[in-house]
Amino acid sequence: MSEPAGILAIDAMGSDLGPSEVVHGLALALKKKPALDGILLVGQEPLLLSLLEAEKVKDNGRVRIVHASEVIDMDDRPLQAIKQKKDASMLRAIDLVKTGQAKGVLSCGNTGSLMAAGTLRLRPIEGFERPALAAIVPTENGFFILLDVGANPNTTPKQMVHNALLGKYYAQAVLGIEDPAIGLLTIGTEEGKGNELSNKSHEYLKAARGHINYHGLIEGFHVFDRTVDVVICDGFVGNILLKTCESLLINVKHYLTHQLKKNWMRRMGALLCLRAFREMKQQFNPDRYGGVPLLGLQGTIIKAHGSSNATAIQNAIDVGYNMIREHKTSALQDAVAKVNAGIEEL
Amino acid sequence: MSEPAGILAIDAMGSDLGPSEVVHGLALALKKKPALDGILLVGQEPLLLSLLEAEKVKDNGRVRIVHASEVIDMDDRPLQAIKQKKDASMLRAIDLVKTGQAKGVLSCGNTGSLMAAGTLRLRPIEGFERPALAAIVPTENGFFILLDVGANPNTTPKQMVHNALLGKYYAQAVLGIEDPAIGLLTIGTEEGKGNELSNKSHEYLKAARGHINYHGLIEGFHVFDRTVDVVICDGFVGNILLKTCESLLINVKHYLTHQLKKNWMRRMGALLCLRAFREMKQQFNPDRYGGVPLLGLQGTIIKAHGSSNATAIQNAIDVGYNMIREHKTSALQDAVAKVNAGIEEL
Repeated sequence: MSEPAGILAIDAMGSDLGPSEVVHGLALALKKKPALDGILLVGQEPLLLSLLEAEKVKDNGRVRIVHASEVIDMDDRPLQAIKQKKDASMLRAIDLVKTGQAKGVLSCGNTGSLMAAGTLRLRPIEGFERPALAAIVPTENGFFILLDVGANPNTTPKQMVHNALLGKYYAQAVLGIEDPAIGLLTIGTEEGKGNELSNKSHEYLKAARGHINYHGLIEGFHVFDRTVDVVICDGFVGNILLKTCESLLINVKHYLTHQLKKNWMRRMGALLCLRAFREMKQQFNPDRYGGVPLLGLQGTIIKAHGSSNATAIQNAIDVGYNMIREHKTSALQDAVAKVNAGIEEL
Repeated sequence: MSEPAGILAIDAMGSDLGPSEVVHGLALALKKKPALDGILLVGQEPLLLSLLEAEKVKDNGRVRIVHASEVIDMDDRPLQAIKQKKDASMLRAIDLVKTGQAKGVLSCGNTGSLMAAGTLRLRPIEGFERPALAAIVPTENGFFILLDVGANPNTTPKQMVHNALLGKYYAQAVLGIEDPAIGLLTIGTEEGKGNELSNKSHEYLKAARGHINYHGLIEGFHVFDRTVDVVICDGFVGNILLKTCESLLINVKHYLTHQLKKNWMRRMGALLCLRAFREMKQQFNPDRYGGVPLLGLQGTIIKAHGSSNATAIQNAIDVGYNMIREHKTSALQDAVAKVNAGIEEL
């Protein structure tokens, strides 16, 4: 095999559904986009070769395999795994970015390990302190961006402003929103009603208004009504919120499915409405927008859900390529330098 | 009017829907429970008299009016309102409890004012530091208790253990769950993965296992699947979570309603499923369990939603009576003393 020179390194091994699902997703992406090129598929070579063969994908330059003998499992302790599994597919994939052989990584693996290894090996963009995970959350008529959803559970007010900048650039670059409105999630729209972190962050965010379109404080009631394009919060709140909303949607779906099967009349009615239910499922599907990027690093890292199916993988590959194309390190570096200077003056 | 000696003081004035809705809810409650007695209806006497008359409720001992000339509005600043509107219905109602003329208060008014005035005038039960708001959140096959949902946005680890105790007694007394399982909401079930507050709280909660059935850490994914009966978190997280879930449900409902009206086939199907949709709406209705109690004070305070309709008011009156009947101040005092001693030893 020649020296790999790729664009997106895909960790094929860490998924809950196994490497076959990842490879199937890749095959779908390749079929859909004939121009897609520069994939480095990282994992156990013999296994990946046979999976690619089964999908009728050839190792022909569009896709090359990079061998890695180990796998970081979901229940591995993140930092321990990074230390002990030196030849893990996830770490090899990140190293391909570090050494300039790829520009981004996509992984469904252990979130903690991905964030820790990504942060340690790729380092934050100058001026930023910590990366942030940004989720795209679907709503009835679009979506909003929520960050941080778990990279940094002990966010500081300064890091909250950094997250606002990261959210702004992400919304612009990948979603095409020109001047995204940014809101700080708290428990009431009166100033001073939140906790210490949100009150201080609000002060800093107001001071950064020359650099971001800061709408102000928003409460939970307004998260889904698209008052703002980007909702920022600390990684503890964001992670709980995202997972709880997913859990609520599953709960509602179970209940409704059960109710609709209760008698023949309802079953018939449900049949007539089938397309409406399918559209709803599709509309609120958290996998619709593929992976969740870890923003603020010198290189693109996309975390896909551990149980991503092939379609989700396919979408995540899309997101990965968009992000790599639009990665604006120097613009972010300029903006954060100004924002940091503004905070110093407060 | 004779000296009022009542059980539940109802602030008739603070509701978004006006006093007529509150009085209508009261009329429903009186009709449903002929034994209901000892209501003190607090607000502008002439207005309340005419509303009671319109509802054909007589001021006959079951209900007595206590006049208060002022009203705290939703957009009043909580502490300012308490200082300036001395004759506000909400404050008069709380004072009836303070002076022993009633045992509990029900209000739909300004949450901040109710919590502040309640805490200042009724004081926490000995051993507790701050009260907590507890919501009952409906799920597909029951409910869970979530606290704190906003009384204390800067909760400390010690107060988190207090919230666990309050949640336990509330679940036992009002919901009849003998030994409620309690979970601490965080961002992963491995120890040390949360923020500083959740990690320290987890330590304290483990030490309190002699007094509470502490299940351990739970993440957002498991909030709605009834892994535990009582979910505890700080007031910042809880408030955001509760409001966001409400916002998501409204969003999903809008979307589905719109989809089901798109063509005649769907409209017909929806008609056949109408009862299923109604049952779902009822099942996940946050007003089903009436008011949200402010736990941990020397007296019962129930906060009903600002826009509670008559049915929600009726349910809240029920909750109020149950809580007053089951108010276990001395048991809570004993338990918290032991828990506090345990924390001291850590």
